[in-house]
Amino acid sequence: MTAPLYQQLAARYRQAITAGTLAPGDRMPSVRTLMGLHEVSLSTALQACRELEAAGLLEARPRSGYFVCAPARPALRPLAEPDLTLPDADQLAGQFEGIHARISSIMASWQRHEIRMDFGGAFCAPALYPNDALRTAAARALRRYPDVYGHVVQADGHAPFRVAVARHAMRARIRVAPEDIAITYGCTEALHIALRAVTAPGDAVAVESPTYYGLLQTLESLGLRAVEIPCSSQTGISLEALELAARTHDDIKAVVVVPNLQNPLGCIMPDANKARLVAWCDDRALPLIEDDCFSATADDEVPLAAAKAWDTTGNVIYCASLNKVLAPGLRLGWMAAGKWQARVEMLKINMSRPNELLPQIIAADFMHDGAFERHLRRLRVQLRAQREWVAGRIARTFPEGTRLTLPRGGMHLWIELPESESETSQTPVSARVADQALQQGIRVLPGAMFSNSTRYDRYLRVNCGAPRSDDIERALDTLAGIVRQHAR
Amino acid sequence: MTAPLYQQLAARYRQAITAGTLAPGDRMPSVRTLMGLHEVSLSTALQACRELEAAGLLEARPRSGYFVCAPARPALRPLAEPDLTLPDADQLAGQFEGIHARISSIMASWQRHEIRMDFGGAFCAPALYPNDALRTAAARALRRYPDVYGHVVQADGHAPFRVAVARHAMRARIRVAPEDIAITYGCTEALHIALRAVTAPGDAVAVESPTYYGLLQTLESLGLRAVEIPCSSQTGISLEALELAARTHDDIKAVVVVPNLQNPLGCIMPDANKARLVAWCDDRALPLIEDDCFSATADDEVPLAAAKAWDTTGNVIYCASLNKVLAPGLRLGWMAAGKWQARVEMLKINMSRPNELLPQIIAADFMHDGAFERHLRRLRVQLRAQREWVAGRIARTFPEGTRLTLPRGGMHLWIELPESESETSQTPVSARVADQALQQGIRVLPGAMFSNSTRYDRYLRVNCGAPRSDDIERALDTLAGIVRQHAR
Ligand SMILES: Cc1ncc(COP(=O)(O)O)c(C=O)c1O
Ligand SMILES: Cc1ncc(COP(=O)(O)O)c(C=O)c1O
Repeated sequence: MTAPLYQQLAARYRQAITAGTLAPGDRMPSVRTLMGLHEVSLSTALQACRELEAAGLLEARPRSGYFVCAPARPALRPLAEPDLTLPDADQLAGQFEGIHARISSIMASWQRHEIRMDFGGAFCAPALYPNDALRTAAARALRRYPDVYGHVVQADGHAPFRVAVARHAMRARIRVAPEDIAITYGCTEALHIALRAVTAPGDAVAVESPTYYGLLQTLESLGLRAVEIPCSSQTGISLEALELAARTHDDIKAVVVVPNLQNPLGCIMPDANKARLVAWCDDRALPLIEDDCFSATADDEVPLAAAKAWDTTGNVIYCASLNKVLAPGLRLGWMAAGKWQARVEMLKINMSRPNELLPQIIAADFMHDGAFERHLRRLRVQLRAQREWVAGRIARTFPEGTRLTLPRGGMHLWIELPESESETSQTPVSARVADQALQQGIRVLPGAMFSNSTRYDRYLRVNCGAPRSDDIERALDTLAGIVRQHAR
Repeated sequence: MTAPLYQQLAARYRQAITAGTLAPGDRMPSVRTLMGLHEVSLSTALQACRELEAAGLLEARPRSGYFVCAPARPALRPLAEPDLTLPDADQLAGQFEGIHARISSIMASWQRHEIRMDFGGAFCAPALYPNDALRTAAARALRRYPDVYGHVVQADGHAPFRVAVARHAMRARIRVAPEDIAITYGCTEALHIALRAVTAPGDAVAVESPTYYGLLQTLESLGLRAVEIPCSSQTGISLEALELAARTHDDIKAVVVVPNLQNPLGCIMPDANKARLVAWCDDRALPLIEDDCFSATADDEVPLAAAKAWDTTGNVIYCASLNKVLAPGLRLGWMAAGKWQARVEMLKINMSRPNELLPQIIAADFMHDGAFERHLRRLRVQLRAQREWVAGRIARTFPEGTRLTLPRGGMHLWIELPESESETSQTPVSARVADQALQQGIRVLPGAMFSNSTRYDRYLRVNCGAPRSDDIERALDTLAGIVRQHAR
């Protein structure tokens, strides 16, 4: 489960390049030098260089070796910023229906095809998770708790797990007592409970635009209306637009944000914005629901702070999970709901009873010592390499006019396709691209899933959770070919 | 995990007594005869006789041995039947609020005491579940699916488990394809989803009276109103009263019933009533939600049929779980939702994503061969012995006027306390009894939890899920003492 040696080596030089230690135009040490310097094999040194080349950091010059190139992805401009001072006009008019039907029909289309290459998920490839260690922990747990399945699970679950969660939350500068944590079936159930705790059917809820389609489904299924607030690919939700929306919609009863590594944009709110948002919600007695599933995948060694870190009144309902970062199959999530904690716990018991114990025991065991931190460090390095490689490949193969802001963590790229000249079809271009890709067994998510509006009809979300491979490269090239057809 | 020898022996003679092979007044074979006849030890033969004595089936006559006595529990009259032709007047007036607050305050009182003897649960003691076999199955599953935690769970879960569930459902004469089963976190989540699928906030839902308090909580949390329909301790929900209620309340949008071994009454609807109820709901396009958690614990060797067995139009949403009968800690439930199946599956994914795999793999493994049936047979015998023993003890120690109908399965007794002469206190007698028991570390559930009305303020629900022990006997006697204080 350690990241392969070549990736570690590549990461080292990537840092040197990012830090300016190696500047554009500089010669990269030769493969032979690398072998001696780092005591690695020829193939490791070569792979590291190819990795950096694929990420657009090095270029090979015939017979001269590798050189640091000008900052990566010359063909890709970053995403344009939306008008961050205004909530979108159609939102103000309250346009919010239909996402459910739309998403359901897209999901139904997936069932009709065999998916051979999946860029649609929000998880990493299984190989990136510490499966061996988790299995060992599971076997140990069964020995220590031989009757685990014969007992009714009590509401407080497995106490050491809540301790581990409380400790983990300190990374994000959250201070919460283990007793004030509710364990849920993933962040999915946590969000659901949070919304049920503070809203009633008919209410409006402010969300980022674009936003995670699961949230839009949850809102619609609970009879809530999404008010979409423009979101910058750099700094996250626009507080100005939120302010304006709140003035226009007096039925907004909660705000849901993903301050760190938002899905799909990958943006991170500056700490100052997090603090402002928390204070703003507090002033208006508007509950703030924070969804924080991805922050442990951020590039930085310094952990990202949660908005909850600025919560002094218990007005922030913090929701997170281990599914993206430790094990999708454990289905473990949690929430720290501040002043709504009692209500949240009642709803959880009422909806599904306490989570079974084994996953909690396994996770507590794994989180107890340094293993979890070591795993996260490896995951960060690996995800970054994968993201950069996919972005590099897209830069080289997608048509001119494609835009993309490389996120500083997570496993998604949010890609804006160039404007198509023949925008005659009723079906938006991203839907046509996604459909055609599906015919070839490739799944990508069309932007239409991430909003109730048509605003993202030219966007695609591409997952970078799997390690570089020829199969992925071929699939990306196929996708590029499809996109090019539509760009004409 | 086989039932102890003495219980098997006792079961044999219980059958003989029930069948009339041994009639009241008959002499029971002597302990010495039993030893020779069945090749058992002295202590086994003795224990079997004591078991039958405790259950009120034998009486010891000094120096003459054991004799079959007149039908058991002479002190206990069966429960009176409510007026089954009328929904209760307060119901018709729409009285339905407050159960949530009431139940929450009772639950909060549990937290303030150390519970040493729990008659409050709805599960069996851990020793009654096949923990060793489940642990072995878990270890095997981890070897076969080493990366189980690294994979995202797909919506179809572990296919062999759905096959096992479909096969198990055939016991109850339900025909359902494995693809048409949704796996949920217990019957709790299944009921929640079923109600969300067919109702909207503000609707009324017809339920049995008394009914499982979890259902009342779910209804209230979803903004639904419970219309309580009188329920016979013999034949279940009154179809006449339901008919009348439907005429009075045109906002009833669904019916929820537990046709087999209802909680708390333990009644079983005759098949003819099940058929009538299904047809009646169908005629009115009123969805019927069937909750079938307990039927595998019925005394009879012939399995009980589900109401769903009579469903020809897909109008019955069948909800069940393995938590009571196989393993509380697996948290496995399922639903077969007929014409609402697609909607139900969408709600499940949206609320909590698919259940994790390991419990499904374990259960499928255990259900695959005869082990599950063998376990259920043992469980039935054991539960019956426990129920009869507790009922016998109550018959001997509770004050005159106590009433109780012995159910033909399950793990609950529903006890009506005698009318108290000093009904001056505001707090109902069952609440006072439950409270005082709690002071002594004993948990029983007061009747008030099982209705929005005050109708069951003189009732207690007592769990019989644990094997006979001196501790339980002492706790029951303590409880009897408390009840006697209030009967005066
Ligand atoms: C922003 C966001 N929130 C919540 C979730 C759901 O997380 P979980 O798998 O923990 O239920 C996802 C999953 O894609 C997500 O992207
Ligand atoms: C009638 C009834 N339905 C549903 C449930 C919930 O079952 P589960 O433990 O499978 O969630 C119970 C548990 O007590 C019950 O008694």
